[in-house]
Parts: sequence; structure tokens; C-alpha cells
Amino acid sequence: MQPNEPQRVAVEHAVPDVDGGEFAVKRVVGDDVTVEAVVFADGHNLVAANVEYRHANERDWRTAPMGPLGNDQWAAAFRVERAGEYRFRIVAWIDHLATWQQGFLRKVEAGQDVTLDREEGAALVEEIAKRAGERDADALETFAERLRHSSDKRTLTRLARIVELTRDYPDRAHATVRDTTSPIWVDQPLAICGAWYELFPRSTSLDRARPGTLRDVIERLPYVAELGFDVLYLPPIHPIGTTHRKGANNAREAKPGEPGSPWAIGSARGGHTAVDPDLGTLGDVQQLVRAARKQGLEVALDIAFQCSPDHPWIREHPQWFRHRPDGSIAYAENPPKKYEDIVPLDFDTEDWPALWEALADVVRFWIGHGVRVFRVDNPHTKPFPFWEWLIAEIHATNPNILFLAEAFTRPHVMHRLAKIGFSQSVTYFTWRNSKWELTEYFEELAHGPGAEYFRPNVWPNTPDILHETLQHGSRGTFMVRFVLAACLSAAYGIYGPVFELMVREAREEGSEEYLDSEKYEIHHWDLDAPWSLRHFIARVNAIRRAHPALQRNSSLRFHSVDNDQLLCWSKRSGDGSDIVLCVVNLDPWHAQAGWTHVDLGALGLDWEQPFEARDLLTEARYTWSGPDNFVSLDPRSTPAHVLALTPLGGAE
Amino acid sequence: MQPNEPQRVAVEHAVPDVDGGEFAVKRVVGDDVTVEAVVFADGHNLVAANVEYRHANERDWRTAPMGPLGNDQWAAAFRVERAGEYRFRIVAWIDHLATWQQGFLRKVEAGQDVTLDREEGAALVEEIAKRAGERDADALETFAERLRHSSDKRTLTRLARIVELTRDYPDRAHATVRDTTSPIWVDQPLAICGAWYELFPRSTSLDRARPGTLRDVIERLPYVAELGFDVLYLPPIHPIGTTHRKGANNAREAKPGEPGSPWAIGSARGGHTAVDPDLGTLGDVQQLVRAARKQGLEVALDIAFQCSPDHPWIREHPQWFRHRPDGSIAYAENPPKKYEDIVPLDFDTEDWPALWEALADVVRFWIGHGVRVFRVDNPHTKPFPFWEWLIAEIHATNPNILFLAEAFTRPHVMHRLAKIGFSQSVTYFTWRNSKWELTEYFEELAHGPGAEYFRPNVWPNTPDILHETLQHGSRGTFMVRFVLAACLSAAYGIYGPVFELMVREAREEGSEEYLDSEKYEIHHWDLDAPWSLRHFIARVNAIRRAHPALQRNSSLRFHSVDNDQLLCWSKRSGDGSDIVLCVVNLDPWHAQAGWTHVDLGALGLDWEQPFEARDLLTEARYTWSGPDNFVSLDPRSTPAHVLALTPLGGAE
Repeated sequence: MQPNEPQRVAVEHAVPDVDGGEFAVKRVVGDDVTVEAVVFADGHNLVAANVEYRHANERDWRTAPMGPLGNDQWAAAFRVERAGEYRFRIVAWIDHLATWQQGFLRKVEAGQDVTLDREEGAALVEEIAKRAGERDADALETFAERLRHSSDKRTLTRLARIVELTRDYPDRAHATVRDTTSPIWVDQPLAICGAWYELFPRSTSLDRARPGTLRDVIERLPYVAELGFDVLYLPPIHPIGTTHRKGANNAREAKPGEPGSPWAIGSARGGHTAVDPDLGTLGDVQQLVRAARKQGLEVALDIAFQCSPDHPWIREHPQWFRHRPDGSIAYAENPPKKYEDIVPLDFDTEDWPALWEALADVVRFWIGHGVRVFRVDNPHTKPFPFWEWLIAEIHATNPNILFLAEAFTRPHVMHRLAKIGFSQSVTYFTWRNSKWELTEYFEELAHGPGAEYFRPNVWPNTPDILHETLQHGSRGTFMVRFVLAACLSAAYGIYGPVFELMVREAREEGSEEYLDSEKYEIHHWDLDAPWSLRHFIARVNAIRRAHPALQRNSSLRFHSVDNDQLLCWSKRSGDGSDIVLCVVNLDPWHAQAGWTHVDLGALGLDWEQPFEARDLLTEARYTWSGPDNFVSLDPRSTPAHVLALTPLGGAE
Repeated sequence: MQPNEPQRVAVEHAVPDVDGGEFAVKRVVGDDVTVEAVVFADGHNLVAANVEYRHANERDWRTAPMGPLGNDQWAAAFRVERAGEYRFRIVAWIDHLATWQQGFLRKVEAGQDVTLDREEGAALVEEIAKRAGERDADALETFAERLRHSSDKRTLTRLARIVELTRDYPDRAHATVRDTTSPIWVDQPLAICGAWYELFPRSTSLDRARPGTLRDVIERLPYVAELGFDVLYLPPIHPIGTTHRKGANNAREAKPGEPGSPWAIGSARGGHTAVDPDLGTLGDVQQLVRAARKQGLEVALDIAFQCSPDHPWIREHPQWFRHRPDGSIAYAENPPKKYEDIVPLDFDTEDWPALWEALADVVRFWIGHGVRVFRVDNPHTKPFPFWEWLIAEIHATNPNILFLAEAFTRPHVMHRLAKIGFSQSVTYFTWRNSKWELTEYFEELAHGPGAEYFRPNVWPNTPDILHETLQHGSRGTFMVRFVLAACLSAAYGIYGPVFELMVREAREEGSEEYLDSEKYEIHHWDLDAPWSLRHFIARVNAIRRAHPALQRNSSLRFHSVDNDQLLCWSKRSGDGSDIVLCVVNLDPWHAQAGWTHVDLGALGLDWEQPFEARDLLTEARYTWSGPDNFVSLDPRSTPAHVLALTPLGGAE
């Protein structure tokens, strides 16, 4: 077997990486990407390496020189400035001149004869000069001449600078090029950080005599904006089927006049690209999107790829549905449970290419009407390759579109959806309530292997999940669950107005369903109820906007407290200048007190220097010194501290 | 963009793996390879998966069905029965019949109407029958018919068996095939387990009037075999150069009659394929290899790819060496150190393909003369791609050849050599002496990410390394270092007879070089010295051979002892039937005692049931019960326990 041209430099363990380059790592516009790898050659040879990177739309690679971190580990960083796909590769080579320099200087120091070494160094420099630009070539040749004829102090002083200069002109003939790296998918910053608010449009009417419409939602925008949210998410707004329509509290049969579930999509009035005439028109949607954006809000629509038995596709594309031996169309079921008002699409159909295109057309349709954010309903019940294709297809022309995966399912399935392209994912937060559950889970989210691609979006409640912690909790419980969501995770959401109004009655004991759920009936809410948490929510969201520390997840760190009902954590901005420390009382009913032991070193704070802890919720100010500080929190007043930490004194 | 035919099943995190399939994992003949992966599909679909595997020389894949471990993790095992390369891949598919079965049984249990479900199940079975062998097809069709017309108890009872049967006839049209897995390189068992003995042939003469020869080595074989070794390793046996020959104790100039270093290879009498006439002939080598094998010993030769200034290649292939500006050939140096008796090969030569082939020919030459094991000198000073090519080249026709990498260098470099094909590697063991150093290092070797490819070979001493622990240690120290090597690692070696004779004088204080090192002069040793450790060594090696527990590394587990001078560890055979527990006293001078806390659960031992601890060194027997046992060891008598643990009583 004929040997290959040798590439002598080993490049191993390049990060960031997802599954050995198979999937993309995720970043947002403005992030610095730090690339690390193990780079080394045989023998005493010194190596040099560059990270080369480019946006998919650029032809030329840009270069970031790697520097050594010790133990053969090298690193370089570059900034991603545009949405879309970036690629990077590592180019590494033996730096013969630097290797020569090292031996040369040691010999000079040992007083050995270096006549031949000077000649060899000069020859190396001249070789490099041939590859250099004209100006540098001149400098290199002059230096080579000087090295050849003298080894005085001045020549040695110039040596380091010359070796540095030659780094721009490596002999790449034998360079190792490592390009089996993960792509880097760059989203708009909303993909990592944003506060979501979900509401049912049909429940937004201030007039109790009629259901709400999209125009009522437009009226509601100032309220949502005042509360400080970034995304307004609407359940499906399409015509609702009448066949097997569900009644209030998921009754098998709807009574006349009951509106049905918005997820039973499609009727004679249209399917996934139609607007329910009871809610309004396509024009209303466009107007809502525009009005929302003016108030700093993105409208997120629901993508639920399923049909009511009355959906136009049943007639137009019967081959997209599974027919049973008696000719009927199979409805959704999870035996023995039945969902008679919904029929699933049959992704096993031989006509799948047309089906996939039709579904992509639904997304394209709403993008065409201004929508940039989609919450995808139960993506885990459709094939992974479908989503991988769909999202790539959309992103190829619209890299700013975001997809939230609403998949409450097994861990590997949730991670797979994130790997194949979903921008964000719902989490188990709703079911993580004790101190150890929260600590373990958020440690995993912030620092586990999924951190490169799985972006959490955490919800204290959803129309499907009213956790018993809220059912049986106090006002303090709602506040704590809100602070946990908003300050543990850069992205979070609530389902309102039931959250801020602290609606908490379950359909029955042991159920996580709301009693009289909006999924099956129309409500009218009193937003001005005196017990509403709206002002508290607005305050916390304002803090999130003012504090970069809360806008990312990777700096999350839990700190020890000697009380199992108190949870303490911190986040820090990338430049270290903004530090937020939170403490919450998980006990719904009783005041709890304890000593926090804050890892000051991890926060860049000095053990000797006092620092100010300013409570951003109450404006109370404390002067702390050292890691141990006493905290007491009462759920009947304020069950949480959200503290900005600032070093005191110094050379201000 | 046209979507691809969907492969719906995700297969992730397949192990064993080295660097995402880039390098081979290593096993030995007879090993069971356990393949694990995360396998799952979308929705409620049940999946099935097989591992398919074959030896490189086989055309057809063999199949091992994977079983679920929970949390979407699946596993299968297969045995590797031949040396050489195996490949494996994972094939996974949606099991539509099993999915149907699950829903069907739930509906039956809930008393729902299953008329249509029976029809659907029967159709699925009939579809599978088309792919089945004739006999199975009949059974399947009969069952389908029965299912269609009755759902009595007997049909339901047969259902599970039928679903099992259909597993052999999956619909592979949409199956996922994961074949980006690591190859599996299978060696002879000596690659993982063996006791090595190094000696200088020229120091084996019993006649003090003359140097030793290869015929003396043949005479020495019974001694080495009696001590229980598996490999006899000889430093280079080639003609030694005279130019710049080193004298005793590495003196710059040899005195007349001094023999020089065996690593200064090549003279007018020949190079890497010649035998030093002072040692013997090629015929003697062949006779030695044959005679050794008859006594259960493999002869390992030294591969040192470097030349004395008198090597024939200097004249025949001057382009393989680096010439300096004055026309001289560069000798080896690590500035400011100089090795004037050795010139390195220039792997940067443009004639590298011929150089590589010539070096491969050296290995082929000695294989042709019966040698199967090579200890490679300083492989880290030659290019990685060269070794990768050389070893693959040799292994393609001779998969039984073993290469030990003698690279005492940085961790990533040592690991790279193991990844690119070296069968075994020397380690930092010689410099790991304290309890925490030994614990941390052997934990890493046995359980770290390198465990799939880096096979340790640990040496208490070598001709280059006389560690201060031995220089300043007691007889107990030599015994403990020996037990550590032989019972912590399945492969180990000693440099004798200086080890068993406890030679320990360094060239000077602070040096790890032996005084009057055999590297530069000829010795005559008194093997019968009364202080020799030969009988102790023979005893430990006999224990190694009798106890499978000591022949692998993956079961290594350290146990806590409440004394920092006592180290306790265990190993267990693959089937769990053989358990060896070792305790050593690291203090060279004082008796030490303490309580061991053995993790009985990890050893499969019962907390309630007493067990016998039989000391294999002394035949002392103890009855122990529970994890805590008192141990006392005196370096002046026996500083180590090597205990076989056996449960007492029970149903023998």
C-alpha cells in the first residue's frame, strides 16, 4: 500500500461539538465562539494553528490564530455577526522556524557554537520570505542577512518579532486541516433570551356579551408590553372542526354553541392557512403582528400538524391519512385513550414528499404574513427527518425564524429535536419543585452536554399543566415559581392571564388540567383584580431587561444555603461586570431563614473587599463582606431576593 | 430542495467508540464486545434493533439482536474469535407489529371493540409473511387467519410468540443503518496480559572472562521461564557504531574495548537487519525464538529507528539524513544536550516513501525470522502518520504482531500513539508512588476514556529509570513495587537481573540513571545471590497465571483504608467467580496497620455471608465477614497481601 503524504500535526477533541460534527452547535448573533482543540506534533517540533471560519454566504475563510493553553490545548475565539450557518476548521502546522529558534536560544545561552545554526535559521527565514507579501519579504530577507553575519544582542532581540511575523506565511503544504467539525447555527438573540406570554384570543373580549377576536388581542398588546414580555404566543387561530367536537372540561360531545378545542384544526371554512372567521381575518393577523412589533413584541403562532375530521385535506388528500379496514379514517389515540376530534397525518404515506411540502407551505404562508416565531405542538409525534428537513428548508432562506419544540416527552427524544434544528425546547421545569430537583436539573441544562444545542424555555404553567405545587400553593408560591422561571432561565413563559390572576383550581383532585379550561370554553378575565401579580411580573421582567447577567444560561451557579427550603443561585454577564444573586423561599407558608455561602471566587468578587447587595425587587441595600450572609424570606410578603452585587470602595 | 427518503429511527451515542469512529477500539481474541446505543423513534412507535458485525475477511454480516436497558438505551454483545479487524453497525427500525400489539392488548384489557384492530394486525402479519422463510411464512399466515376470525385466549397467548418470530423479518426499507462506528481491532491475548522481562544479552555470560551471546540467552531461558515471565525483551542486537561511541557511564568518548550503547545502531558490519557478530548470528536469533516459544516465552526485539554515524544507510541513502550547511550530518540533540553517537532519520526528506518502506522492511525482516513482539524505542520522535501506516501495513498480513510504544512523554502524545495502532504503551507508573498518585493514575488507566485503546504496560524499573523510591527503598519497597506492577496491571515488565538483585545505586545523587549502567558496559550477574527476589517473583507470576481476575484491567477497584501508607484494591474475573484483593504497605521501613473498607457489593459478595480470604503469597487463611477488616503489614517480612476471596458456606 502506497503511504499518503504525511500530515504530521495531530488535531483532536475540537470543541464546540455536537455528536462528532453530526449536528450544529447553536449561538446567537454577537456571541464569541471559543474554539478549543488538542494540537501537537511528534518529537520536539513546535506547532502553530489557526481557526478558519466563515458564514455560509461568504466565500473566503477568515482567520483567528490559536494560542496555547498548556498541556497541548489550544484556543481561539471569533465573533458571529450574522444569523445563519457558520463553518469552522482548524489548520495546524509544524512551525520550523519557532522550533529552530527554541534550540538556537538554548545553545546561545549555553555558550555553544551556533555558526551553523545561524546559517540554518537564515535559510528558513529566506524560504518563508518567498511566501510573504512584498513588504514583509523585504524585512525577512534583511533579517536573514543580518542573522547570517552576526549574532549580536540586536539580532537576538529582533528574533522574536520575526518569528511572530512569519506566522502569517506558514508552509501549508503539510498542514493538517481538520474540518469534520460541527456547523455553528446562529440565531437572533430572541432564540436564547425572551419572556413569553400565552393567551387565548377568544378570551380577550372586555365585553362579556361576546367572544374575543384578534382585534381584542391588539387592544390587549399594551397590557402584555407593560408586563415586559417579548413574545405573545397564540394557540391555533384556525377554523375548528365540528365533528366529534369536545365540550367543556373535555366532554365527549360538545353542547350547541360550545367552541371546541383550537387544536382540532380545520373545517369547511378552511385549514392550516385559514383564520377562524370568529376570530377575524388574515388582515387582522398582519395588523396584530405589526402592532405587536411596534410595542417590542413578536407574535408566535402555533404549528399543530393534525386535523379535525372536517379539515379540507381529508377530502383533497385522502392518501395523507390512515384508513382503517372499514374505510374510516383513524383518529388519534393512545390506547385506551381516544381523541375523536383529531386525526393524525400519516407520515408513512407513499405520498410523503407532497405532504412534507404542503406542511412546509403552511410555515411559509405564515412567514409571508409576518410571523417569525412558531411554537410547534407535539413535534415528537412526527418523524425526526421531517423536522430536520423542514427547519433546514425554512432556515435556508429565512435564518431568523425561531421554532419552539413543545415536546414534553423522554429526554433523548427532546434532545434529538433540539439537535435537528429546533431553536428552543420546553423543559421539565414545571415538575421540578424541590431544591435538589431544581439544582440538578438546571445544572444539567446550563452545563450538561446538551448546553451546546438544547435551549430551555421554562413555564410555571401551560393550558395543559397546572402543577399541584400551584394548585395547593400560596401567593408566595406563584411569585417564587415566577422568579425561578424568569431568573434561572434566559427564556421562559407563562400562560396568562390565569397565571397572574393565580387561577389554580384543577378539573379534579390528582389532575393537572385546569377546571373549566380555556381549551374548551371562552372566558372573560378581570385583569384589574387586586390580587393580580401583574406589577410583580412587570418588575421582574424589567430587571431581566436591565441585567445582561440574566440573559444567558452558561454562567448559572448554585450556592450553598444551610436550609433546604432556601435556594440560592447567581448569574454573571460575559464580561463579569453584572452579577445577579437570587435567593427564594420554596416553603409556601412559612418564613425561612439561613446562611448563604456564596462562591465569591466564581463571581470574581474579593473575599476581603465588602460588596453591596441591592435588592432589585425592593430597592433595599445591604453591605455584605465575605461568603457567608444571613437571609430570611417570608412567603406572605416577599419570598425572593433578586440582588445585584457590586464591589464597594476601590478606585471609583 | 427535495427531501430524502426518511429513516425515522434515531441511533445515537454508539459505543464502544474512539473519537467518533476515527480510531479503532481494542479487544483480544475471546472477548465479548458489548455494543450500546440510544435507539428511539418518534411518537408511540416501538423500535427494534440489531448489531451487525463481521471480521474484515468475512463477507456476510452476523447479527446480534439488541435488547432494551431502559431510557431508550439498547445493548447487544458478540464474541470476537479471530485476530484482525472487525466492523460493526447498528440497524434499527420501527416494529409496526409490536406497536400494534401494544395498543391492541391495552384495548382488549379495557374491553374496547377490537374488530378493526384484529383485521389490521392480521394484515401486518401477512405483510411480514411475504418476507419470511417458507416454514415461518406458513405459521404467520395461519396465525393471521386465526386473528382475523377470533380473539379468544389462545390467539392472544400465541400473539407474543408471533411478534417475536417476526423480528427476524424486519421491513428494512426504512431502517436506519448506523455505520460510522469505530473499527474493533482484535489482538492475541498477550496484547492485554503478559509479564515482560528485559535483559542485555551481552551481560548473560556465566563465564566472567567473556561477554554474553545469544547462545547464553538461550541458556538463560529456563531461569526466565521459571520466574514465570511471558515475554523476553532484548535491547537492540545489531552492530554498534564506533564513531563518537559512548564510554562507561555515558562518557563522551569510549575507551578502547568499551562496547558502546546498543542503541547506536549500525556499523560496517551492518544495520537494522544485521546481528552484532559479537552476539551471534541470524541463525542464533531464530534458534532463540524457537527455544523461547517452547518454554512459553515470546522474544521481543527492539525497534529503534535511528543510526550510528557508521550505519550503512548513511552512505547508501544520504538523502534520509539532514545535512547541515557545512555538509555534516546533524546528530541527535535536545539543546543543549547532545547525542553524538546517534543521528536521527530525517522524516522531512522528499524521499520519505522509500524511507518508510525501508523501515517497514526492517519489521518484515524480523517477522520473517519468527519475531512477533516489538518494543518500539521513542516512537514519539517520529511522525504519527508513519506509525499509523507502518502498523496497518504489518497488521494487514500479520494481525498477531504486537507493538509496545516506549514513549515516556506528554499524555496526549502517548494516547495518540495508542490510537494510531500501538498494541501497548509504557506508562507513568515508575513515577507514581504515593497512595493518591497510584489511585488516581490507575483509575484513569482502567476507567478513563483511554481504556478503549490505551493498554498499559507498567515497569518498576528500566535501563533508563531507576526511581529514587528504589534508590532509597528497602527490600520491602522492591517487593511492593513488584506487586503493584504485577497486580494493578495485566501487563507489566521488569528490567533484570538488576531488579531481582535489587541493584539500586544511581550514577549520582538526583539522577535516575544506574551507576555503571549496562547501556554502556558489560556485566556478569550472580543470579543465585541469597537476597534475590526470584522466588517471590516466581510466586507472584504463578498467581497471575492462576487467577483470571489479574489478567484484565477493567474490573480494577480501589477500596478505602484508614491509613495513607496502605493501598487496597481488587480485581474480578469477567464471570465474577475469581476475586483477588490486594493490600500493600507503601512505607519502606515501618509496619503499618489499619482497617480496610471493602466495597463488597461491587465484588458481588454478601454483607451477611462470611467469606474466606486466602493469602496466595503465604497460604494463610482468614475468615472475614462484612466490609471492615483489620490488616497489618511489615516491610521486613511480607509487605503485601494478595488474597483470593471466596464466599463460605451456601449450597456447595
